[in-house]
Amino acid sequence: MSGPKKQLRLGAFLQATGHHVAGWRHPRAQPDAGQNIAHYRQIAQTAERARFDALFLADGVAIRSHDAETLHLTSRAATFEPLTLLSALSQSTAHIGLVATVSTTYNEPYHVARKFASLDHLSNGRAGWNVVTSWSESEAHNFNLDKHPEHGARYERAEEFVDVVRGLWDSWEDDAFRFDQAEGVHFDSSKLHAIHHKGKHFSVRGPLNVARPVQGHPVVVQAGSSGPGQELAARTAEVIFTAQQSLEDAQHFYSGLKSRLAKYGREPDELKIMPGVFPVVGRSESEAREKFEELQSLIHPSVGLSLLQQHLGGIDLSGYPLDGPLPENLQEPNGTKSRFQLVTALARREQLTIRQLYLRVATARGHWSIHGTPESIVDRLEEWFLKGGADGFNIMPPTLPGGLDDFVELVLPELRRRGLFRTEYEGKTLRENLGLARPAHRIYRQGGDILDRVA
Amino acid sequence: MSGPKKQLRLGAFLQATGHHVAGWRHPRAQPDAGQNIAHYRQIAQTAERARFDALFLADGVAIRSHDAETLHLTSRAATFEPLTLLSALSQSTAHIGLVATVSTTYNEPYHVARKFASLDHLSNGRAGWNVVTSWSESEAHNFNLDKHPEHGARYERAEEFVDVVRGLWDSWEDDAFRFDQAEGVHFDSSKLHAIHHKGKHFSVRGPLNVARPVQGHPVVVQAGSSGPGQELAARTAEVIFTAQQSLEDAQHFYSGLKSRLAKYGREPDELKIMPGVFPVVGRSESEAREKFEELQSLIHPSVGLSLLQQHLGGIDLSGYPLDGPLPENLQEPNGTKSRFQLVTALARREQLTIRQLYLRVATARGHWSIHGTPESIVDRLEEWFLKGGADGFNIMPPTLPGGLDDFVELVLPELRRRGLFRTEYEGKTLRENLGLARPAHRIYRQGGDILDRVA
Repeated sequence: MSGPKKQLRLGAFLQATGHHVAGWRHPRAQPDAGQNIAHYRQIAQTAERARFDALFLADGVAIRSHDAETLHLTSRAATFEPLTLLSALSQSTAHIGLVATVSTTYNEPYHVARKFASLDHLSNGRAGWNVVTSWSESEAHNFNLDKHPEHGARYERAEEFVDVVRGLWDSWEDDAFRFDQAEGVHFDSSKLHAIHHKGKHFSVRGPLNVARPVQGHPVVVQAGSSGPGQELAARTAEVIFTAQQSLEDAQHFYSGLKSRLAKYGREPDELKIMPGVFPVVGRSESEAREKFEELQSLIHPSVGLSLLQQHLGGIDLSGYPLDGPLPENLQEPNGTKSRFQLVTALARREQLTIRQLYLRVATARGHWSIHGTPESIVDRLEEWFLKGGADGFNIMPPTLPGGLDDFVELVLPELRRRGLFRTEYEGKTLRENLGLARPAHRIYRQGGDILDRVA
Repeated sequence: MSGPKKQLRLGAFLQATGHHVAGWRHPRAQPDAGQNIAHYRQIAQTAERARFDALFLADGVAIRSHDAETLHLTSRAATFEPLTLLSALSQSTAHIGLVATVSTTYNEPYHVARKFASLDHLSNGRAGWNVVTSWSESEAHNFNLDKHPEHGARYERAEEFVDVVRGLWDSWEDDAFRFDQAEGVHFDSSKLHAIHHKGKHFSVRGPLNVARPVQGHPVVVQAGSSGPGQELAARTAEVIFTAQQSLEDAQHFYSGLKSRLAKYGREPDELKIMPGVFPVVGRSESEAREKFEELQSLIHPSVGLSLLQQHLGGIDLSGYPLDGPLPENLQEPNGTKSRFQLVTALARREQLTIRQLYLRVATARGHWSIHGTPESIVDRLEEWFLKGGADGFNIMPPTLPGGLDDFVELVLPELRRRGLFRTEYEGKTLRENLGLARPAHRIYRQGGDILDRVA
């Protein structure tokens, strides 16, 4: 075999105190993480030293909770806003990518294009935008709406939104600026373009008041797995973050999505698929098991019960003893039947108490949870990677900083021993490290020259 | 006299390459400033070493130009977006305030409240928001509108916008967070409040998903000098940035605005008035004059002519020789008669050529321009400060970094010799350094508790 072995990509998905629902209570978490920039600086620098491709931040423009009564027992109600946070972290890191989630449902494309272009310049080419359409009513209520728009309408808006943002990123050609002090010519006006976009959702003339991003375009990331979500991804995304529970599911998703690319004239390798992984690492299998049990033991019973009730479609279990069985004859709810049936069947089959049952459902929000030694974890990551289930993984540490330290100190050496992960960054930009081409400048639609633009 | 002498406040108004229209061509400017974070880091650190109260960034959400044909001869078409830039600078500074301009006309209050709260946490209490309502048609065209909303409508929206933002900043009480790992209680739910705002322009439930800002509220800055602008300022602003040309005008503005405060139950000292100053400093009067002439000589004739034409209300002078007189019988334009009469009278009285005339109008966009030795400049700043024209000044260096270095090295020692400016920061936050009280938490209107809030 010639040439370097193909390597996988890694994201560090930063949820302030970690991804386990009770992780913030663990001694190796930072409970005030959401207002502690020193904490974020530390984990960003750990991830960069470890040569992760990117930091990844989720987002919502509301306090989102299924259950107001247990919200105060969890750590996710308040934290930094992602674009300001990553702009700050751009100055305490030098190589790692900076991916922020921003919703297309509650924003305007000019602001989004501008802020990511600015972040790309601040970081010298390390910005990425995770495009989401939001999912909660709470967000609608903060933006003048009574109801969250429905799925189809959100994706229709998202399609147009992404096009406008990409058009705005091409307002300036790469070599537009001359900075010619002697002649007094700051830029070449023939290389500045307005987009003159008029669509169903947006009317945006442009041009953008930020130079073309260092990467041409910041990397476009998406996480939608619905039909419209996959179609948007196939047309516009360069990285997909996805929740997959088994190799079979992952392979199915991977091949399905990659096969959609041809329709848009794209090669399979122009889109990197990175499932989320929630790893609990121990030096031995028993140490890993103990670590996981310790985390589980920190789940407040009210939080556990609340999670279980959500899985059962909102059924109230508060009258029943936690260490007794799930009551018989529960009323099947409307809307979430399959999950209800799955969970009740599990309880019956394994004769679980309510407490045992909530511990089973309180995992990584649908993400792949793997517990074990570095070798056994790498065996499974390698299998997904080599068998067409993933181009890399978005690592979701159970606690922060502790869970990230474990992954870096224990799992990465084994990944490297097998030649599966880099020891040095290959390039200077996020795009270069991910192996994605820099988009050529193109003039958007009926893009005019500078004379068309000014009022 | 007992107690320390009253001292003035200083802002460093950062316009990428400096405030002189041709400053970017000067050897002491950084022509690529708008995409050069190292440049901003340098000037931010210079201003902090000099103990300036704050960095101040203007903003527009469009490329705004009166004249498309000369835009490429100036340096203001593209630069960093202010909130991302200040978030980055929050990490390379530790004391100086960070004031960003954000328009209420083209934003939503939840985003604005959230980003400034986040910046306040990132900077440990140094954020300020300069509230503007925007002024150009170009901005409307980037946000789905054909026309920029008119003045009254913009200020009506701004009034409600500021209230919603301040309400959202009080979503969390100061001591809401307990971080009690042992008990599993992250925060006290009785100390989280939704605002349930329903107004003419906005419907926002809240609460904000960022903890109460370190300063309680980031400092609210404004620059509007119209009647509605002054009323909004009297009710809500803590710092005013204003353009005043003479001591008499400054005194009139100062006493007029301060007298409006009582109506809102506020003391005069709760609002700091800081006129803009464009200083050209020399070790001698002749050196200062030479510096100014050098800058003036860099004005590209097309830019100068364009500026003059704007002052004359859009009259086309392109057919006339630059070194000849202003033509006779110019048609008086509609709308800007007083400025037209002022400029034409100046030309006749002093028998100026077109070139001489454009050099006279190409000053600091209506701001106070002072040229001279450190002593003569401080004489005039001191006079304004002591005679009720200003609480401090927003310094607008003609070039950056050079013009800021001059002010710091030459003018500040003289200000300090006279006891007019600090040698060390008095406090830790922007608010403390400005001498502004920290706002107490108050529950917004019909604010509910956490149980009211969640969908």
